[in-house]
Amino acid sequence: MSNPDQLLKPLTNVDLMIEAHYIVPMSKTHRLLEDYTAIIDAGLIVELLPIAEARQKYTATLLVCLNEHALIPGLINLHSHAAMSLMRGIADDLPLMTWLEKHIWPTEQAVVSERYVKDASLLACAEMMSGGGTCFNDMYFYPQESAFAAKQAGMRANLGLVVLEFPTVYASDADDYLQKGFEAHDSWRGNPLITSSLAPHAPYTVSNQTFEKVITYAEQLSLGIHTHLHETRAEISQSETKYGLRPLQRLASFGLLGPNLVAAHCVHLQNQEMDMLAEYGCHIAHCPSSNLKLGSGIAPITALLAKNINVGLGTDGVASNNRMDMFTEMRLAALLAKGASEDATALPAYQALQMATINAAKAIGLEDKVGSIEVGKFADLAAVRLDDLMIAPCYDPISHLVYACGREHVTHTWVAGELRYCNGIYAGIEPRELKEIIDVWQPKLRQPN
Amino acid sequence: MSNPDQLLKPLTNVDLMIEAHYIVPMSKTHRLLEDYTAIIDAGLIVELLPIAEARQKYTATLLVCLNEHALIPGLINLHSHAAMSLMRGIADDLPLMTWLEKHIWPTEQAVVSERYVKDASLLACAEMMSGGGTCFNDMYFYPQESAFAAKQAGMRANLGLVVLEFPTVYASDADDYLQKGFEAHDSWRGNPLITSSLAPHAPYTVSNQTFEKVITYAEQLSLGIHTHLHETRAEISQSETKYGLRPLQRLASFGLLGPNLVAAHCVHLQNQEMDMLAEYGCHIAHCPSSNLKLGSGIAPITALLAKNINVGLGTDGVASNNRMDMFTEMRLAALLAKGASEDATALPAYQALQMATINAAKAIGLEDKVGSIEVGKFADLAAVRLDDLMIAPCYDPISHLVYACGREHVTHTWVAGELRYCNGIYAGIEPRELKEIIDVWQPKLRQPN
Repeated sequence: MSNPDQLLKPLTNVDLMIEAHYIVPMSKTHRLLEDYTAIIDAGLIVELLPIAEARQKYTATLLVCLNEHALIPGLINLHSHAAMSLMRGIADDLPLMTWLEKHIWPTEQAVVSERYVKDASLLACAEMMSGGGTCFNDMYFYPQESAFAAKQAGMRANLGLVVLEFPTVYASDADDYLQKGFEAHDSWRGNPLITSSLAPHAPYTVSNQTFEKVITYAEQLSLGIHTHLHETRAEISQSETKYGLRPLQRLASFGLLGPNLVAAHCVHLQNQEMDMLAEYGCHIAHCPSSNLKLGSGIAPITALLAKNINVGLGTDGVASNNRMDMFTEMRLAALLAKGASEDATALPAYQALQMATINAAKAIGLEDKVGSIEVGKFADLAAVRLDDLMIAPCYDPISHLVYACGREHVTHTWVAGELRYCNGIYAGIEPRELKEIIDVWQPKLRQPN
Repeated sequence: MSNPDQLLKPLTNVDLMIEAHYIVPMSKTHRLLEDYTAIIDAGLIVELLPIAEARQKYTATLLVCLNEHALIPGLINLHSHAAMSLMRGIADDLPLMTWLEKHIWPTEQAVVSERYVKDASLLACAEMMSGGGTCFNDMYFYPQESAFAAKQAGMRANLGLVVLEFPTVYASDADDYLQKGFEAHDSWRGNPLITSSLAPHAPYTVSNQTFEKVITYAEQLSLGIHTHLHETRAEISQSETKYGLRPLQRLASFGLLGPNLVAAHCVHLQNQEMDMLAEYGCHIAHCPSSNLKLGSGIAPITALLAKNINVGLGTDGVASNNRMDMFTEMRLAALLAKGASEDATALPAYQALQMATINAAKAIGLEDKVGSIEVGKFADLAAVRLDDLMIAPCYDPISHLVYACGREHVTHTWVAGELRYCNGIYAGIEPRELKEIIDVWQPKLRQPN
């Protein structure tokens, strides 16, 4: 400010400047920036500068000062069923097939409808955004309704066009699912926040013929593919009996493996299967809470990472979690990898943050748009308070974010530069609306039959 | 109220009535009481009655209405090093010996003092109470200072008279540790909230001769024994090399095993060792976060529970956690047992709550005083909000407490009927005091050498 030449330079006006004690860009160039400003205009990150420099160069319509916070890329939930939010804790501590056949599937048959999916997805968006979530990679019936909810919440979503073989309230057969999926895909075309993937549910619920159609459509429409894979041992042995192949081998036989595939879970993998996933550039959505809670097992994440396979994190549906909380998943992923491998250096805090941000963005083909705080990307951001005395002191903000903080420390969530959540308040959702959703649906879900 | 006879009965006045939507007594007789009142007088639970009946029988100096809450027994942290709170995240993602030798031990040598222990213990008490904690089973240097902190916070503590072979700032040799321990024990004698145990640190840091002394003193003074046991594989193989015995066999050879022993960790156990722990009635403090974070492994909790061994939960020191959060430990214990055993029915939510309450009370010999909400026990209680929309809906309060809630949902913590924490405010601690503790110690800990 003492240089008179500088005083003559006009300041550039931008929409938003966020001054933060720490910025954690998750870029290749910087691990941590201290006392930095993110300069944001038209939804995009324009520049990152030390606070003093930024003030000399820019003026902003809105200046947000986060003296005690870390600004991180918005968290990306790489495997969700948002509309299961209303089934939180509807059945716990049960074997997988009892849980599915006696509780989840009957409940779904009884209550799932367009209205249900919109309402439940809105509740899920509210939960995710309050925990710093800005994007989710979803799979459920009536995806156009999840799109409505995401649009209302102002949240980014990559929505699966779900395909199953068997009839549900949503569709009658695989072709009908595909047809309804494409209608949904058309319904949100042009919306900057909503993208699509093809979502054949799982090898055990989708036929060879349908998988082949999915591959053709994915190529024609340049879409990613999102499926469940090797979640349980039972699924693998059933496949061996029915097809003479393990599910991954079977998918490979169609040519389904590739850099557009996001495989959720991958709990049980042979070494050669990991090599195959690496070779084809497939992505994995690791869901540690869900895998543990359903008794599926512990995914070999340390081995997958050692093979340079891209791994992101997902909450799965809330019925098997029972939170849509990426902070819980980050901490658990880091801890579980260390414990399972008996190596405290496995999956350090920074890598857990990568899995919840840039890795997930890569997996759904959005790495040029989101997943890190870099010039030219959308300002999908979350601010996390580090000064809560209950988690003090803080020596290393990266460690603190993963091991000490919880989602309750998130104060702000922006999507494309728009503040969508701040300290309990949403830009697009009234708390009363969420309360009404609970009041309407909870009695119906309690006794679905 | 319609019976005129009732109107004539005078109401009994008591100190405190807590009306709760749910009471989770953790007693043998009731799993869940709905719309119930806990009647409390002189620190003790006098009666549990339906709300309407309670109002007809009692009047209270203080009535607390918790319409959206579950009232649970105060949580008991069965293995802590409270004074490590200021070392939260000082070193992460490192192998155990590097972590201990390069970071924790040098830091301790540089900063630990009476003042350090009092300050750090107070911070830990604040953290634990804000998460519903009412009691901790601790082991650290200068236990009389932890007693001062617990007294100030108004928290119950079972403090270990720590014994090591090697010199530290606190004591010079095993006899000196014991001597200082007994002085500490005398310093809090008569305090209703503070009790003692003998705390030989671990088989690898305590000699045969010292263990034998510990056993003698434990018998003479009727004290429990608290030690680390079979935390790592390295500890076991070192013992085999040095003593020709695994640590548990070695302890058994002195007669250390018994119903007054709390063994922390027990990550690596052979089947016959589990049988031995069962036979002698030993208690285990399971510390899932710490065991994972240090890469120690996954304790065989499902097998231990199947043998009817009493298992409680602990956070361990915050340097290897990095939270003193019993909600995190409950959820993780339940999930990890299911995942490790590949059985979703393993360690259901109710059992996780038992481990954090009544089981821990049993382990430290306080089961007649605390650990459940039963007539005649102290009113050590926590209230947990179940109506947060971010974790709605709630179908089963027990599941909700373990799988969906976090410590951020704790609103009130009482110890012996005294409200010690409520919505961010402490009866005995000023937030300024905690801030000052951080400000004083954080710079010293950052560069200890």
